[in-house]
Amino acid sequence: MAAIQPPKAQYQQVAALLRERIHDGTYTADQPLPSEPQLSAELGVSRQTINRAMNLLRSEGLVRVRRGFGTFIRGVPQVTRDAKKRYAARNQGTGAGDVEIKALGLTPRTEYVEIGRVPAPAAVATVLSIETGAPVLVRRRHLFANDEPTQLADSYIPWDIAEGTELLNRNVGRGGSYTRLAELGHGPVRFTEEVTVRTATDDEASLLELDGGQPVIDITHIAWDAADRPVEVALHVMPGNLWRLRYDWDDPTADEYPTVDGEV
Amino acid sequence: MAAIQPPKAQYQQVAALLRERIHDGTYTADQPLPSEPQLSAELGVSRQTINRAMNLLRSEGLVRVRRGFGTFIRGVPQVTRDAKKRYAARNQGTGAGDVEIKALGLTPRTEYVEIGRVPAPAAVATVLSIETGAPVLVRRRHLFANDEPTQLADSYIPWDIAEGTELLNRNVGRGGSYTRLAELGHGPVRFTEEVTVRTATDDEASLLELDGGQPVIDITHIAWDAADRPVEVALHVMPGNLWRLRYDWDDPTADEYPTVDGEV
Repeated sequence: MAAIQPPKAQYQQVAALLRERIHDGTYTADQPLPSEPQLSAELGVSRQTINRAMNLLRSEGLVRVRRGFGTFIRGVPQVTRDAKKRYAARNQGTGAGDVEIKALGLTPRTEYVEIGRVPAPAAVATVLSIETGAPVLVRRRHLFANDEPTQLADSYIPWDIAEGTELLNRNVGRGGSYTRLAELGHGPVRFTEEVTVRTATDDEASLLELDGGQPVIDITHIAWDAADRPVEVALHVMPGNLWRLRYDWDDPTADEYPTVDGEV
Repeated sequence: MAAIQPPKAQYQQVAALLRERIHDGTYTADQPLPSEPQLSAELGVSRQTINRAMNLLRSEGLVRVRRGFGTFIRGVPQVTRDAKKRYAARNQGTGAGDVEIKALGLTPRTEYVEIGRVPAPAAVATVLSIETGAPVLVRRRHLFANDEPTQLADSYIPWDIAEGTELLNRNVGRGGSYTRLAELGHGPVRFTEEVTVRTATDDEASLLELDGGQPVIDITHIAWDAADRPVEVALHVMPGNLWRLRYDWDDPTADEYPTVDGEV
């Protein structure tokens, strides 16, 4: 028998009710949810309890506050980002940045904020094994799904590789940056990703339309060529509640298990 | 030349100063940091600014509040969790749960909260492709580094595999659970992990000694045997600021790049 569960706090019960109403269509995406005083009166609980429940739903990414308009159901569901699949998508003519959004039937959009030569910031220089301030190509993008922001993504490529190539164009051509890198003799053969979680800065919260204090996921994605040189690093900043990251790998030591019979 | 940066908000300047004092040893781990009124007086900024800076340091995992004692530097630095390496560590006699902590020179400790037969919760049943409520072995642990909580980890194994085996013991023996599974004909050959971020529940915040509202990382780790059966799922709940997740993989499509000469 399952262990007895402690009684749920009031705000959790309110959150569960609101979740149900979102899922069964009582509340729709085109109208704001009832205000906190309205819900407080309807449900007979304090405004503080309603506020706590709303904060929970916001932290889950179910709703977001549009300042001056009220609280709305988010139009973009949680997006699964399968690391291996997304970077293998280029040969189907879909960029890595679009593949998960299209899979959900949503419309991806990319805003290019900056494409050009810049001095490498310290963190980028460390990853690319170059001097801080050495020239790199930056491709700085804001990504959207159905016009809701999904991530900020800055890619850096060493300038000695990128200079004078199609990598400086807005549209780098079929197969994307990695196919261009391959034509230049630097095709990525291995990827590394490091994932950390932190509070959004004010700028990020504004660009990603996050309410204050929400966590973001930082992904540092590094592409390595056959000579084991890091040829691109992409820094992704993503709303924490919007994404589900998926990784899979074969166990490198599976052949070292003892057999069923205890043999070596 | 680098773009001109906007001036840093006051709380960010205060946070930078406190970070510097933590790193240069002005503040030490055995004493609480000065109180907010003390810092407000010393630095000539409002208590609200000090509070905001402290919240930033807390969200970064640099400090934590010990209720009634003040704000202390955290004793455990950010821990890198290399997915491939940790599960390959069993043949060196180190459990997957300990390997990252030992690498930092810290002392790992595992508290077993529950080991036994339970009905599979819905989420576990879905992953293991069994009916909700079907029997599973649960191994529920709280993990620590130098007595600071680092994660909650619940492993589930289908009961038909685990029944009557060493997997029910507190110490499952050399090589850990995966070696026992291999001896039973279910050695994992492939792993899947899904990573999401959310706000800690009150219970989790208490167990993980988090201040309110801090994000946790959820990892759903699935081990697959050679017959492609999911033979174990582990649910990890980890303080968001404490961990750096690392994944790497070979590009499965690297051989589909065009060559430098444009040949196929």
